[in-house]
Order: sequence, then structure tokens, then C-alpha cells
Amino acid sequence: MRKAKKPVPFDGSGRSNRPGRVAQRKYLEKQGLPPGTLVHVGHRRLERVRVFVTEYDDRHLEEKEVTGIPELNAFRQSRKACWFDVRGLHDPEIVGTIGQRFGVHPLVLEDVMNATQRPKFEESGESLFLVMKILHYDPEAAEVTSEHMSLILGSNYVLTFRETEGDEFDRVRERLRSAHGRLRTSGTDYLAYCLIDSVVDNYFVILEQLAEKIELVEDDVVSNPTTATLRTIHTLKKDIVSLRRSLWPLREAINRLSSGAVPQVNDATIPYLRDVYDHTIHVSEAMETYRDIVSGMLDIYLSGVSNRLNEIMKVLTIIATIFIPLTFVAGWYGMNFKSMPEYDWRWGYIWVISLALGVTATMLLFFRRRHWI
Amino acid sequence: MRKAKKPVPFDGSGRSNRPGRVAQRKYLEKQGLPPGTLVHVGHRRLERVRVFVTEYDDRHLEEKEVTGIPELNAFRQSRKACWFDVRGLHDPEIVGTIGQRFGVHPLVLEDVMNATQRPKFEESGESLFLVMKILHYDPEAAEVTSEHMSLILGSNYVLTFRETEGDEFDRVRERLRSAHGRLRTSGTDYLAYCLIDSVVDNYFVILEQLAEKIELVEDDVVSNPTTATLRTIHTLKKDIVSLRRSLWPLREAINRLSSGAVPQVNDATIPYLRDVYDHTIHVSEAMETYRDIVSGMLDIYLSGVSNRLNEIMKVLTIIATIFIPLTFVAGWYGMNFKSMPEYDWRWGYIWVISLALGVTATMLLFFRRRHWI
Amino acid sequence: MRKAKKPVPFDGSGRSNRPGRVAQRKYLEKQGLPPGTLVHVGHRRLERVRVFVTEYDDRHLEEKEVTGIPELNAFRQSRKACWFDVRGLHDPEIVGTIGQRFGVHPLVLEDVMNATQRPKFEESGESLFLVMKILHYDPEAAEVTSEHMSLILGSNYVLTFRETEGDEFDRVRERLRSAHGRLRTSGTDYLAYCLIDSVVDNYFVILEQLAEKIELVEDDVVSNPTTATLRTIHTLKKDIVSLRRSLWPLREAINRLSSGAVPQVNDATIPYLRDVYDHTIHVSEAMETYRDIVSGMLDIYLSGVSNRLNEIMKVLTIIATIFIPLTFVAGWYGMNFKSMPEYDWRWGYIWVISLALGVTATMLLFFRRRHWI
Amino acid sequence: MRKAKKPVPFDGSGRSNRPGRVAQRKYLEKQGLPPGTLVHVGHRRLERVRVFVTEYDDRHLEEKEVTGIPELNAFRQSRKACWFDVRGLHDPEIVGTIGQRFGVHPLVLEDVMNATQRPKFEESGESLFLVMKILHYDPEAAEVTSEHMSLILGSNYVLTFRETEGDEFDRVRERLRSAHGRLRTSGTDYLAYCLIDSVVDNYFVILEQLAEKIELVEDDVVSNPTTATLRTIHTLKKDIVSLRRSLWPLREAINRLSSGAVPQVNDATIPYLRDVYDHTIHVSEAMETYRDIVSGMLDIYLSGVSNRLNEIMKVLTIIATIFIPLTFVAGWYGMNFKSMPEYDWRWGYIWVISLALGVTATMLLFFRRRHWI
Amino acid sequence: MRKAKKPVPFDGSGRSNRPGRVAQRKYLEKQGLPPGTLVHVGHRRLERVRVFVTEYDDRHLEEKEVTGIPELNAFRQSRKACWFDVRGLHDPEIVGTIGQRFGVHPLVLEDVMNATQRPKFEESGESLFLVMKILHYDPEAAEVTSEHMSLILGSNYVLTFRETEGDEFDRVRERLRSAHGRLRTSGTDYLAYCLIDSVVDNYFVILEQLAEKIELVEDDVVSNPTTATLRTIHTLKKDIVSLRRSLWPLREAINRLSSGAVPQVNDATIPYLRDVYDHTIHVSEAMETYRDIVSGMLDIYLSGVSNRLNEIMKVLTIIATIFIPLTFVAGWYGMNFKSMPEYDWRWGYIWVISLALGVTATMLLFFRRRHWI
Repeated sequence: MRKAKKPVPFDGSGRSNRPGRVAQRKYLEKQGLPPGTLVHVGHRRLERVRVFVTEYDDRHLEEKEVTGIPELNAFRQSRKACWFDVRGLHDPEIVGTIGQRFGVHPLVLEDVMNATQRPKFEESGESLFLVMKILHYDPEAAEVTSEHMSLILGSNYVLTFRETEGDEFDRVRERLRSAHGRLRTSGTDYLAYCLIDSVVDNYFVILEQLAEKIELVEDDVVSNPTTATLRTIHTLKKDIVSLRRSLWPLREAINRLSSGAVPQVNDATIPYLRDVYDHTIHVSEAMETYRDIVSGMLDIYLSGVSNRLNEIMKVLTIIATIFIPLTFVAGWYGMNFKSMPEYDWRWGYIWVISLALGVTATMLLFFRRRHWI
Repeated sequence: MRKAKKPVPFDGSGRSNRPGRVAQRKYLEKQGLPPGTLVHVGHRRLERVRVFVTEYDDRHLEEKEVTGIPELNAFRQSRKACWFDVRGLHDPEIVGTIGQRFGVHPLVLEDVMNATQRPKFEESGESLFLVMKILHYDPEAAEVTSEHMSLILGSNYVLTFRETEGDEFDRVRERLRSAHGRLRTSGTDYLAYCLIDSVVDNYFVILEQLAEKIELVEDDVVSNPTTATLRTIHTLKKDIVSLRRSLWPLREAINRLSSGAVPQVNDATIPYLRDVYDHTIHVSEAMETYRDIVSGMLDIYLSGVSNRLNEIMKVLTIIATIFIPLTFVAGWYGMNFKSMPEYDWRWGYIWVISLALGVTATMLLFFRRRHWI
Repeated sequence: MRKAKKPVPFDGSGRSNRPGRVAQRKYLEKQGLPPGTLVHVGHRRLERVRVFVTEYDDRHLEEKEVTGIPELNAFRQSRKACWFDVRGLHDPEIVGTIGQRFGVHPLVLEDVMNATQRPKFEESGESLFLVMKILHYDPEAAEVTSEHMSLILGSNYVLTFRETEGDEFDRVRERLRSAHGRLRTSGTDYLAYCLIDSVVDNYFVILEQLAEKIELVEDDVVSNPTTATLRTIHTLKKDIVSLRRSLWPLREAINRLSSGAVPQVNDATIPYLRDVYDHTIHVSEAMETYRDIVSGMLDIYLSGVSNRLNEIMKVLTIIATIFIPLTFVAGWYGMNFKSMPEYDWRWGYIWVISLALGVTATMLLFFRRRHWI
Repeated sequence: MRKAKKPVPFDGSGRSNRPGRVAQRKYLEKQGLPPGTLVHVGHRRLERVRVFVTEYDDRHLEEKEVTGIPELNAFRQSRKACWFDVRGLHDPEIVGTIGQRFGVHPLVLEDVMNATQRPKFEESGESLFLVMKILHYDPEAAEVTSEHMSLILGSNYVLTFRETEGDEFDRVRERLRSAHGRLRTSGTDYLAYCLIDSVVDNYFVILEQLAEKIELVEDDVVSNPTTATLRTIHTLKKDIVSLRRSLWPLREAINRLSSGAVPQVNDATIPYLRDVYDHTIHVSEAMETYRDIVSGMLDIYLSGVSNRLNEIMKVLTIIATIFIPLTFVAGWYGMNFKSMPEYDWRWGYIWVISLALGVTATMLLFFRRRHWI
Repeated sequence: MRKAKKPVPFDGSGRSNRPGRVAQRKYLEKQGLPPGTLVHVGHRRLERVRVFVTEYDDRHLEEKEVTGIPELNAFRQSRKACWFDVRGLHDPEIVGTIGQRFGVHPLVLEDVMNATQRPKFEESGESLFLVMKILHYDPEAAEVTSEHMSLILGSNYVLTFRETEGDEFDRVRERLRSAHGRLRTSGTDYLAYCLIDSVVDNYFVILEQLAEKIELVEDDVVSNPTTATLRTIHTLKKDIVSLRRSLWPLREAINRLSSGAVPQVNDATIPYLRDVYDHTIHVSEAMETYRDIVSGMLDIYLSGVSNRLNEIMKVLTIIATIFIPLTFVAGWYGMNFKSMPEYDWRWGYIWVISLALGVTATMLLFFRRRHWI
């Protein structure tokens, strides 16, 4: 179930490729405020913020939607593992309340609410903080849109903050509900891994969608290159450039998370995180390949334009160089000199026809010798 | 309140993109002088140097403008935290006097007065020395102008040196005046952080202004590319190249400042400085994106120029290849051979009209088959 | 003996250069499944999976084809060295059973079945895991196709998993059969080395085939550059780019394998692995050279296109600039003014012939002076 | 006072950009000689070698020109600090004698006499060896010329070797003569610093001169781009490329010299050397900026050439497409068919005039609609 | 004395730039053979292998040519230093016998016989193994050809293996013969240094020859750029690219050899090896400069082609735009309307002449205003 109103084109920072107005005003607002002041930077994409809580241990699981600040405050502190899934970032009060309950550093909360924050990984006190981007692809506009997502992993809780109500985590939720499986018995670090994996898995879908678009444009470039093709190529290029830029910090973040130097992550979970790391490498390498392919397409496009110019010039040259001498011949015998003997020849007309045919034949021969026709 | 007279175009060194005359003469003057000799390198942008002093602890705050060297010398040495804000760099005496009072190394003072100094961070004895650039954007000329700014952080004082009387630090000053808030209770390292943060926050405004300019030019490139567009693209490119170059040392400087290896910075302040570091990374990555976008615009521009040439040639070729054969036909029947039978045909004129229409139709068919019309 | 049905074009991930459909659907299937679930990602290239087992020590050798899961389960666990050669990856049951018997981590098995997995090296528990690509070259399409291959090296066993029944390992098998030679007396790490060496040796064949293709295209580019040439150049470029990308992780993998830090590899085998490492460097450097050559060819192609345009324009210009003035002369004397004295001159026709010859001579002289003819 | 006869164009190795003959013969001569054999590689730029000695302590200073080998050998070995300034490198005997007296390694002396040696820093026994380039700019030829300079710093002596008698060190000499100032009281490492600083300071002058040249060419490129402009751009590019290449090793050399790991350099001198290091970074970054500007100029140049072609084609097309139809009309009514009714119309001439005007108007309208006129 | 039959064009691997046939077959032969099997990969360039032995200590020196395997086997094992100089690589028996006598690892011998092996340095047991390339330049074809050379340095012996009987080592041999000099008294590491130095010194000759060729082509590009020029530029580019690629591993190899971490090299020899290292850096930096120059030449070439097109178009446009209106005027007054009043004017002819002159003058004025003539 997805209700995103205006998907935001992707440039690695949640803002449009055409760098936009909204974020600017936000930044201007924010300027000079004391650090740690919670201000939402980005587009508001949901009408109201919804908070889903899942509490579980290996035997019990309870799911609940929390509907207001008071209810949030009253939320009991159990010993069970607990996952807060916050959808919508624009309410500083909700983010602040949750942050306070779990002792999250104000600067971390600032990053949670800042949709322009790039992917990063931070150890902040006893919890881990990871910023990622959920990607969506709009095939019409050939634009990749990005959604800000933060994950905070503590001793026995996971907090996720998203901009919309996408279905990225639905399968994880289902696996959590089914009593058997590792998810219920492993710690919250394994839950965090599953959530991260869902987001990264989705990148492969984007990869394939981009690939299909590239294939379409590749055909266009060869068969019918127009200025629109050129613009699509550039849109693709910008998409890829932005994606690459956002993948690099993510790779680094997951690399550090899976390095084994982080006490919140159990040794058993590390191979799984290495696997996610491997996937991010795979995606960013595919990105490199796509970039090369798109650059190659640009070359083919430009070369196609040159070729067409050549072809046009060839046609012009053939027509002109055949008819210009002929016209001269005709003009010559249109002169009004009384003394021109040809006019009185018996075979005068035959002569001029032969002359014309001769000129034409010579020219055609010349073109053939040059492989122009 | 800003009184800068001639903003200096930005190239990472306070000098114009068109590398200028003034700085050269200054350098020639300086050549061969003993090191540590204070000479102002750069444009003088204020008529007279003004020095504002703010003394504060958690209960008291005193603000005062110091108006002369004697008064400066007489300035009492209290135990309170103290911020000297020097506006205008061209007076070696004032800079020298302040430097002496706080035991600043002569080479550091040389850098303070050298507007062409690139951003850097230095531990110098018991104090920290940071060089930054305050940026301004002139949308008319599409030029980013830069202002030299130095910050010296000692045990209980902060010195700032700026070229103009900009309003960059006004909000920090206001927060300082309000008795509550961290600023009054934390050490001078937190004040230094706030000042650095103000400068870096301002970079986001520059980012947005550049983004808007890029957007405008992007429209121009597609709809009406002129040589002026090309020049604007190149100005943008130069701006971005210079900004990138100046951001790299700043990133490194703030990274080292926030690394935790500097005793003058308290552990509590480090997360805030990491946050500023994060912002500089964000800005420099946006810069990379802008550079790619601007490069793409150059490609579109050049390709647009090629396309227009193609279009022109197409029109010429169509007109010429239709009329050249027709003109030949007309010329042919303008020949004066007496023996030309067509002249005497009854339907001679009809024949030639048909011939002309036939030639035209053939040509049009040929063009249509090639998708030229 | 090779039975591959549809070789898959190479892009470092087993998928087509034109990023394809099949892999996408696979990914979508896989999304959200628990990690370690065995799903074949890639094209099925053999009808049924075949498993060949070779058990040997320095005196005995036994070869056997295992034909079903039950037989596989019943396979005796001897103290001898043992090589499982699995051909075909699409059967999760077989891969799973073998994996279980040798205690392979589920994530490793996932990578074994994922033909899009890039080359990598991993220490996983007591065994080593290496992913490589077997390359084939299709000269017709100028396309390099890639086959996924995994090798697991344990204390006294080697597992290889391949997509097809290629003949890559036949010579190793023969050397294994001959009682003398190091292979039988050295450990399984030496067998693993021999198998890796076979795969890398094959890369040199690909190198040479690419080189021959490049040579052919190089001739084409100079003598007869067509749009087809351009497309072949781009196919070569894509091939090379993909190969380079796949060689980098392989280099790193073999480097780590031969670093001496891996207990499963004996010191005596390390020089041999360094030798293989050397070969991968050689191949990837040749790749760099090829890339430069192909880029150079693109330049020659584009420059050839420009030259041809110049040539065409030169012909047009010569013809036009000779005949346009002549046509004017002829047209001039076709005017019907009664008062034109030339018409009545005795030598009028001679005059106009001289004039025409004079104009022609002048023009030819002009062209010769400019070295156009 | 400067007597350099033929300044050598700069390519980081003292040789001409157009790689020259002299150095080659030198190299061929040198080939196969035992290492440490002193041979001058480079152009001889002074008629005879002159050696100036300055002996000083905090109270006394003595300056003297040494005129021959015997006098050099007889030179007394005092306890005072001593600076040998050798001008001219072509005399192996003088260089060898000085080298022997101060115990310099033969390979170091070889580098002293080899003008093609790139900047480097070496600890050689108890002394430090630094190779730098003194730069001069020839604005006419837009060429940067380079002069080889070596500096050897021992316990209480400094040796400098230069190719010409430039005035680079005159100010240092003057400061040395004036009794007060740090120079006389600090060690020879401070003298070495002053000499290095003089050379690097001079780079800023080159910077400014290059900048001015760039500015001039930039104007040319926009207003009147000729092939000469193109060649100047390429000369600038080569200059900058060479300068960059020579600055990199210098940066590294001074970085190592100022790192604090060198016992010959006192801690008090290190901040000054860091300052020089900072300057070399500044210069090499300005170089990067210049390179980008020059590359941009090349783009503008090429785009200007394209634009002019477009403009030419537009004029041709407008003239041709207006007059080709008109000429056809005129040709049409020059036909000699007896049956053409228009000839007999009363308003025939008016008709054809209207037709001509109509065609012209249509064409002009078409051009206006396309924004060509 | 040099007898090389077919020099092999250089691509860092002893093979032709046009990747060739011979090496391929060799590789196919080699495939699947046990590692350490000696097979000659490369062109056979000498008819028979010759082995020269030089035994020496500080007082005695004995030179001898060994003519067969038996003699080789019988060679006495003395305590003196000993240099085996093997010329010709195609005989596995000779290489194998020598290898066995000195205890060289089979993989090292494989590299000795593999002319496509890239430069490398290896510590192999008690001996050092260095692969280098001896370069030759063929000015006619503008091609750099390369010769495979290996050097093995043991406790008191040096083995060199070369493909031809070049004169590279003749001067070293002469210095060895002369009783005085360091060579006889220093260890074999100094002899190895001298041999390496000879090879690297020769690179400077190649440098100069390339430089001269570049100079010639540079003149061509400006004065008379043809397609042949373009091809020469590309040959140069390929040469330089290959040389660079081969210099990088050599630099690294010599760097490691001279690092001081190798027990076979005495401390006294290290400064000499550092000097060689310095030379390789010099050569590879010159290579960078050449590459930039050659790239610049390509730009000039392409721009020259564009300029010529512009020039051609300008001529065409001037001629056409002058004569097309004139031809129209002439055509106009060739119309046969009876009612045309001009025909009857007294000054009709004068009028049309004036008209023609007027049109011409207008056009010329227009061109002059645009600076076309």
C-alpha cells in the first residue's frame, strides 16, 4: 500500500534533479537555529504520521498502531524486542518523543528528519544509526525518485523512519509473524539486517527497470535519433550519476556495519551483512556498466547526427554537380549571339542532347568511382 | 548590515576568476621580506577596521566596540570567555596588537591578513587556527564571491577576522545574548563551533542559488542556445570548479578539528563538529552533481548547435534539389536551336508543365522516403 | 565436450549486455525470501544436472558419476582427497545436499546458484570459497559470453560448480589420472590451483580472439568505415569494459588467496598461486591496452567521417564555383536587350568562349593555389 | 643581474618543450660511464663559473668571490656558518672540488650537474640535498623557462648551485648583511629556508604572469579566434602541464623536509618550512584552476568555430533559397515555347513581378519563423 | 654486434601492437601443461642460443663462451663471482640446465622463457629475479620494439637472459675487464646494478627518438595535416600508452629492489639503485608529458580539419552568393515577355550592367563587414 503523493526525483539527497525551491526555504529557516532543533527538511508526503509498533520474543508477537503523543508516552517498556516503524517525518513532536524514550542524540534525530541527508552509518552512544534511501523508478519520466529512511538499532529495539507508507517491509513483517524462522529467535540485529536487505534488494529492481529503459533508448538511438532521445540519454545519465553518488556512502556504511567492530551486531549476523555489502557492490558495479553504456549511446547519437549531415550533403552534392553543368549547357545555348553556328546545324539539337547525356554520364561515373552512389 | 564595496569573484583564493592585478603587486611587494612581516594581501573592502569584543560567562555578558590601538592595549584581561570579532584586515597594527596580546605566532597572523590563503587548520602552540571562506553569490554575473575569514580558538577566547561587516554571525550573537541555551554554559570551543556552523550553513544558500541559476541556463540551452548561454555555462563551470577546490581543504580541516585529537575541543562538542563535517561533505557532493549537470548541459549545447546546422543544410538541400532540376528544364527550353521540335508541339507548354510537376513530385517523394519532410 | 545451448553475453554478471528479462523475474521472485533460500538466478543451460566425483590419493584414483540425490546421500566418506564436479546449477536440491554433506554455509550456496554473482573470494568457516567466470568468445557477434563457476576448497575436498559441461577441466583430469606428477601427491589446494589456472589460462585465448577481432575492425575503420563498424567498435568497447570490471574482483580474490594468510593453502602452493595472480594482472593490463586501442579507433572513425564530409564539400565547391560564374555569363548573353552590342560583334561568340575559358582557368588556378586539386 | 643567454623552455626537466638535441647527445655521451662520473647535462648558460662565499656568525660577516680551483682548495675551514653560492654548472672540476671538501656523495654531485633532474629531496649522510627549479616567464613566446638549482644543507654550511646569475637570492643576501634579524642568529637551516622561500615566492610571480596571458587569450578566443589563438592555448596548456608535473615532486620534497623527521632542521624552523609547503600547495592548486580555465577556452574556441560555420551556412542558405526559386521563375519565362499564353497577357510582366515578390516574401516569412533572420 | 632478425613491436608484452598469431598458438600449446614446464613464448630471434660466462674477483677475470649442454654441465663451481649471459631464449634445455645448477625455481624459469611476461621483481628463495624490457626504436615505422630480458641475482652470481645479441651490456663488460674501478671489488649486486642501469639508460635514447618523431609530426600537423598524419599520431599514442604501461611495473620492481629490505643487496649499492629508480621516474614522467603533447596534437589536427571545412564553405558561399543574384538578374532579362519595358529603354543595357555591379558591390561590402574577405 503506497500513498506517496509527489515522488521526489532522485539526486542522492531527496531533492529534484532540477534543484528545487522547497528545500531552500527550509534551509533558510533552519539557518542560525541552535543545533539539535528538529525541523523537517524535505517534502511532506503523507497527511499524517503513523507509528506501528511490533513487540516480539520467540513465543509472543504483538502488533499495534500508536495514534497519538499521549499513547506513545504511555507505551510500556517491556523486555521484549520491539520494532517502531514510523511513517512520515514531518512531525517533530513524534520524532522527538520517540527519540527521548530511547535516548537518541538530538543530532541523530535532526538527521532522521532531514530528507536531504546522505546515506551514513554512525555509532551514537549505545545505538547504531543508519541512513539509507529507498528508491522508486518512474518509467514515464525515466526518473529515479528517492525516499529518506533511517534505522536506529539499540540493545533490544529497532526504530525505522520513512517518508511514505511503502510496502518495502511487508515481507519482513510477514516472516516475523510466522512463529518459526530465525527472525523470532535471533536478536534485533538480525531484524535490522532483514530490513536493510529489503531496501537493498529493491535496488536490483531499479537496476532492471533502468536496464529496460536503456535498452529502449539504445534502439531509438540507432533507428531514429531525435533531440528527445538526447534528452532521455541525459536524464538517464543524471539518474545514474546520482545513484552512484548515493551508493558510495551506503557501501561504506554497510561495510563498517559488517566489519565486526560493532558490538551491537552479533557474530552470527555478520555473514548476512557481508552478503548485503556484496549486493551493494554488485549494484554499484552495474551502475558503472550502465554509465559506460549510456556514454557509448551518446557517442553513437552524435556520430549518427554527423552521418546524417554527411548523407544530406551527399544528396545535395550529387544533384547539384549533375545539374549545374547541364544548366550551364542549356544557358549557353540560350545566348542570343547571332554568330553561334550550332543553332544552324542540322543536328544541333541532337548535339546538345548528346552533350547533356555525356556530362551526366561522366558525373555518375565519377560518383560511382568514389562510392557515393 | 553589509558594506562590502567590491565583492571579489571567487576562485578559492579571494581573487577574481580573471586573475587580477592587485594581488600580484602585493606579492611583488612581499617578496623578499622577512617571514612573519604583516602585509595585507587582497582588496581593502572596508574603510576602517572595527573590533567588537564580547565577554561572557554563564551569568554576565558585556559587548563593546574597541576603537583604537591604545584602547585595545588597555583592554583588561579577565577570566571570562571572550570573543574578539575583527572586521577588516588591512591594518597590520591592529592585527599585530591583538596577535601579541594572545600570543599568536607571526606566521599565523600573516595568514590572517592574506586573503588568498586557502582554507586550512593548524594547531599553533596552545591555540587552534582555522581559515575558512565566507561565500556570497552575485546572481547577475553568475559569480560566487569569497571573503577571507580566520578563527583562532584559545583556552578561553575566540578571535575572528573577517574582510567585511557581513551578518553571518548575527544569529550566533543573538543566541549568546539570551541567557539560556548551551552557548553561555559551554566553553569557547562550542562558540567556535557555532561560528563555523554559521559559515558552512551559508554554503547551502549558495548551493541553492547556484541550483536556480543552473535551472535557468538548462532551460535556455534547450529552447534558445546562444553564445551567451555558452559563456554562462563556462562561468558556472569555473565557479563550481573553484568551489570544489576550496571545499576540499575545508573538509580536511574540519575533519581534523573534529577528530578528537585536539585537546582544545571538548568531547561534548565533537558530535557537533562531526555534524558540520557532514555538511561540508554534503555540499561538496552536491558540487560534484552540479558539475556533472553543467557538463551535460555543455554536451546538449554542442549537440544543439550540430542539430541546427543539420536543419539548415536540410532546408538548403530540399530547396536546391527541387529547383535545380526545374531550372535546368526551363533553361533547356530557353535554348535557341531552331531544330527543337518541342517548340512547335501543340501541347508543348503543357508538356513542360507536366515535366516540371513530375520532377517536383519525384523529389518530394524522395525526401519523404528519407523522412526529411 | 560442450553442450551450452544459449551462451549468455558477458557483462560480468552472467547477463546479456542488453540487460535482460529473465534475471529480473528471478530477482523479483527472490525478493523477500529468507536469506540462504536456494534459488537459481540465471539461464538454465543444461537439461539435467550431472555430478562427477573423483576420489584419489597417491596410489589410487576412482572416478564415478553420481546420478541422483539418494546415491549422493549414500556417498561414502573416505579419507582420500575428493573432487566433486557439478555441471548445471539449476537444481537447488543437489546443490543443497552437497552443501549439507560438506557443511557449506547457506549464503555460500546462494552465491553458487546465482550466476550474476561477481568474482569473489571468501573464507567461510573451514573452507575457502572462490567465484570465477569461465569466458567464451563468439566471433560472429563479437560478444564475450560468461559462465558462472564456483570452487569450494576444504581440508581434503574440492567442489566445483559450473553452468555447462565445458572442456575447461579435461586436461587437469588427465593429469590427475596419470599416476606420476605433483597433482596426486600434493594436497587438494594444489588441485584447486590447477583448476583456477585452467580457467585463467583460457582468458589468454579470449585475449587473442579479441585481439584478432580488433585487428579486423582496425582495418575496416581505415578502409571502409560504416555505421556497422561503429557499432562493432561499441560492442568491443562494452565487451572490454565488462571484462575489465570482472577482472578486478578476480585479481583481488586471487591476490588474497595467494597472500599466505590462508591456512588451507600450503606454502608450497603459494608461488603457483602468485603465478596465476601474475597472469590475471597480465590479462587485465592487456585489457587496458585494448581499451586504449579501441578508443583510438573511435577517434579515427569520427575523424574519417569528418574527412569524408570535407571531401564531399570540396567536390561540390569546385563544381559549383566553376560553373556558377559560367552560367552567369551564359545567362547574361541570353538577355533580350536590343541594345546589347556584343550580339552584333563579329567575334561575339569567340569573345564569350574566351570569357568562359578565362573564368574556368582563373578558378582552376585558385583551387590549385589552395591545394584543393 | 642576469646574464642567461638562451633561456631553456620549461618541461620540468630543463629541456625544451620541443624535445631537443643537446640533451640527447649528452645522454649518449654519459651512457655506460661509471656512476658518479661528473658530466654536465644541459645547456651552458654562463661563460665561466663563479663562486661566492659568505661566512657569518651573529657578529661578523665576510663576503668573498673565489676565483679558481687553487683558491677554492685553500679556503679556510672556520667554525662560522658558511654559504657557497655557485653560479654555473658546467665545470665538473669546481663542483667536484667543493663536493669533496664537504664530503658530498658522488651521485648527489651528478644530480647537481644534471639540469634535467626533477625536483627531489634526499638525506645523504649528514647533509640534506634538495633539487628545485627557478622559473622564468617569457611573455612573448608564452613560454615558461626553467633553471636547475640544487641546495645542500650541512651542519654549518649551505651550498647552492645555479645555472645562471639571477637575482633570486639578492634580498636574502641583503637581509644577511644587516646585523639584526633572525638570519644571523639562527642556524644554516634558517638560511636554507630563506633561499627556498625566495624560489617559491618567485613562483607566484610566474602565476600572475600566466594569469595575465590567459586573460589576454580568453579575450581573443571570444572576439577573434584564429588558428594562432589555438596554438597559444596549446602552448599554455603544455606550460601548465609541465609546471604541474614539476610542482608535484617539489611539494613532496618540501613536505618531507618540513616533516620534523630530519635532524638537520631545528624545530623552530619547521613552521617556516610548513609555510613554504603551504605556498607550494597554493601554487599547484592555482595551476589546477588554470588548467581548467584553459581547457574551457579550448571548448569555447571549438564551439566558436562551429558557430561560424553555422553562420556561413545560414547566409548561403538564405541567399540561395531566395534566389534559386526566383531564377527558376525567370528561366521559366525565358522558354521559347510559342504556345505560352503568359507572353501575350497584357499584365504578363506585372504578373511575373508579383510572382517574384510573392516567392521572396514567402521565403523571408519562412526564415523569420525559424528565427534565422 | 646485433643480429635481431624481426624486431617485435612493443606492447609491454613482447608482442606486436597488432596483436599477433604466434603468441596465441604458443599459449594454446601451453594450456593445460603442468606448471613449471619450460616453453618458449615469443618469436625466436636468434638461430642458436649462446652462453657467455665471465668469472672474476678483484685480481683475476676469465671470459669464456660455453658451447653445449655437456660443457655447461661440466662448468666448474668456483668461489669467484660469476656472470652467465644467455643470448636467445628458445632452448628449454639450456635454460633448464642453468636453472638447475643455480637452484632457480621452475616458475621463475617459465617467466624467463616467456617474452610476454611483464616487468616484475621477485624474491625467490636465496636469489632475486627481475624482468625488464630492452627497448629499440624503429623510426621508419615509428614503432618501439621490445626485447624480453631477465636477471637473476644470487649470492655470488648474476644470470642474464636476453632474446638477441644486442650491445647493451658491452660497456659494462669493458668496465669489468679494466682491473681498476668499483666493479671488480664490489659484489655481484653492484654488477646487477650496472646491468640494470645500462638497460634504463637506454630508455633515455628511446625518449629522445620519440621526441624527435613527435617534433616532426607536430610540424606536419600544423602545415599539412593528412590522414597519414592522423595515423602516425595514433601509432605514437599507442607506443606511449604501451611504454607507460610497461614502465609502471618496472618502477615498482626497482623501487622494491632498492628499498633496503632485500638482503642480497648491500647498503652501499642502495644509493645507486635509488638513482636508477629516479631515472625510471624521470622516464615515466617524460612519457606523461609526451602523451599530453600527442593528445594536444590530435586536438590541433581535428581543429585543423574543421577549419579547412570552414574555409571551403566560405569560398563556396562567397562565390555562390555573389553570382546567384547576378544570374537571377540575367535570367530575368532573358524572359520573353513582350511587354517588358526595359528591353526598349535606350540605356537598358547600361541599366542592367549597373544593376549587376551594384549587386556585386553590396555583396562584397556585406562580406567585408563580416570579415570574410
